[in-house]
Amino acid sequence: MGKIVIGQAGGPTAVINTSLVGFIENISGKSPIYGVLNGYEGLVNENYIKLEGPSLNWAKSNKYMPAACLGSGRYPFAEEQITIAVDNLIKNNITTLVFIGGNGTMAALQDISEASSVKGYPLQVIGIPKTVDNDLGLTDHAPGFGSAAKFVAYSARDISLDLRAMSNFEKVRIIETMGRNAGWLALAAGALQKDASEGPHKIYIPEQKFFVNDFLRDIKDVVKEYGTAAVVVSEGLKIDDGDPIHTSIINERTVLGGISQRLQTLVETNLGFVCRAENLGMNQRCFSLAVSNQDRLEAYEVGKKAAELVKDGKTGVMVGIKRTAGNEYNFTLEGYELVKVRDAGERLLPAGFINNPEVYYEWLSPLI
Amino acid sequence: MGKIVIGQAGGPTAVINTSLVGFIENISGKSPIYGVLNGYEGLVNENYIKLEGPSLNWAKSNKYMPAACLGSGRYPFAEEQITIAVDNLIKNNITTLVFIGGNGTMAALQDISEASSVKGYPLQVIGIPKTVDNDLGLTDHAPGFGSAAKFVAYSARDISLDLRAMSNFEKVRIIETMGRNAGWLALAAGALQKDASEGPHKIYIPEQKFFVNDFLRDIKDVVKEYGTAAVVVSEGLKIDDGDPIHTSIINERTVLGGISQRLQTLVETNLGFVCRAENLGMNQRCFSLAVSNQDRLEAYEVGKKAAELVKDGKTGVMVGIKRTAGNEYNFTLEGYELVKVRDAGERLLPAGFINNPEVYYEWLSPLI
Repeated sequence: MGKIVIGQAGGPTAVINTSLVGFIENISGKSPIYGVLNGYEGLVNENYIKLEGPSLNWAKSNKYMPAACLGSGRYPFAEEQITIAVDNLIKNNITTLVFIGGNGTMAALQDISEASSVKGYPLQVIGIPKTVDNDLGLTDHAPGFGSAAKFVAYSARDISLDLRAMSNFEKVRIIETMGRNAGWLALAAGALQKDASEGPHKIYIPEQKFFVNDFLRDIKDVVKEYGTAAVVVSEGLKIDDGDPIHTSIINERTVLGGISQRLQTLVETNLGFVCRAENLGMNQRCFSLAVSNQDRLEAYEVGKKAAELVKDGKTGVMVGIKRTAGNEYNFTLEGYELVKVRDAGERLLPAGFINNPEVYYEWLSPLI
Repeated sequence: MGKIVIGQAGGPTAVINTSLVGFIENISGKSPIYGVLNGYEGLVNENYIKLEGPSLNWAKSNKYMPAACLGSGRYPFAEEQITIAVDNLIKNNITTLVFIGGNGTMAALQDISEASSVKGYPLQVIGIPKTVDNDLGLTDHAPGFGSAAKFVAYSARDISLDLRAMSNFEKVRIIETMGRNAGWLALAAGALQKDASEGPHKIYIPEQKFFVNDFLRDIKDVVKEYGTAAVVVSEGLKIDDGDPIHTSIINERTVLGGISQRLQTLVETNLGFVCRAENLGMNQRCFSLAVSNQDRLEAYEVGKKAAELVKDGKTGVMVGIKRTAGNEYNFTLEGYELVKVRDAGERLLPAGFINNPEVYYEWLSPLI
């Protein structure tokens, strides 16, 4: 009897544990269930825990807790590590591998699947989607995004209103959101805005070029019109076509952050306005009071669906969310081929949403 | 018939508008009610709006909205401005002045009251408490603090758990909270912690000295014991007895901020750990999804009580919250003399709470 292993990878979300519990509560059968610790690293280091009795109850107790209870992380996972991982899967008689993750994870699962095939090892692989950036292909959206977008939308509205109340003390706030290449989260900042004066007054996304001179002119115009300017910038913006601002490089991964401070200095130096940088930070992906009910529900359902796909003997697929037609929001769960998810790459904001944010906010509304 | 004027001053909170609505919904009588715009600035510039019909409904519609709908702000309010303000009150036949604010506002109200007396003008003044720092004297606590503490407590727990899940990528997070001289908010960061491993692992408050060498040793020890270190620092900490880190000085007021980044650099340089600075920022005082029900209730009640004090002809008092004895949390509302509130100055964390955070968390629990 082969073992079933489930893991979590990449940046956590506020609902990734809900997907884990959705899986383990619904994967009945005779196969023993294991959790792999710290994502791919645990595959390389053979770091598994059997989920039964107290450890199963412990995992279930994390259903509504943020972060990744099995440990997630970012770990170099190139050909060498994949080979080791596959050898370990074979050695440990693991016949089913399930991972909750984003783009990188879906590509890694497909790579593992292909490397297993080469060795003639019949490994079943299933992916469960999660991302706060919403840059995962094929699926309408992925669990984690709705709650992150909710945090960003409320933060941007509340910080804009707070600024307006302080107009005799400060004039500008620059709110920094996550989003390396995709502006889904940044643009969500305007979802609760009731009128143009309220703010956020401008939103800058990585899909569009960003020039300092235009930005400074925008700030000047907005302050002139509304008295204060609350603007939103995605961490991935490339100022005047330069490199994105980053804090460090770890394992060859650039950790973005700091653009709001860079722009704060430019505003103060060039326009003389008192300006504050507000980096929304890690709370975007983990703040438990901003979890959206719909996001929580869907996070559980994709985990449950993955359990069904395992029982049905499916392999090489990621669970995806398909929005059904009609006025009322509804969805079905589909299995999308991992190879197609990998090949689809990062999903950016479509032009229709960029050009008509109101259309985007209508699309977003049921998710937050 | 003299006019009644109400205003909001200082940094907004998530519930300061609730207090405003508590007042205007309960101040029945023949006197016309006005709101003064942008705090003291409006007193100096005679910037009032009559609250009746549509403007009254607009004000009431802000009951559950963050920020200060009348405009708040920080405005120089020395002897010269106070004299102008009093002359304007007399000129406009304003016989009752009510302000929602913190320490500075209560002192300003007392100053206005004294300046009016000197001129022989019988002005009624009433204060409604608000603060996120909880540094206001005499009252058990002030509305605004509970919601801010709730935001800080959930943020610190969630960001700590998120860090633990990412231990193969980063080791240290430094979470920066508000709190110029008082550590109420910073210490609240530990309120939800279930066990020592979970984090936040250390909390540094302005009431205690802060030495870099001790801090670095703490970080090293915590990483050794738990694998990651999530620590909380108050923005007002004085590193090695120096000045607090600040971003700017506006109207002679130092805007604090940036200590987490300063310490991040020190951790990376001296210990070689990957470290992230997380400044919780303005969301601490305005994030509407973190509003505590008890805080909202009390914010309304202090506004309502102020209306009763006005009708009862009281003057020179601030509404305060008195915690009643007994196992169940309960409170009564009292009138504390403004002159005593002014003289009490900033209320710091008592030694009993600093030395036994568990006692503090028990005290805090009903408020968040």
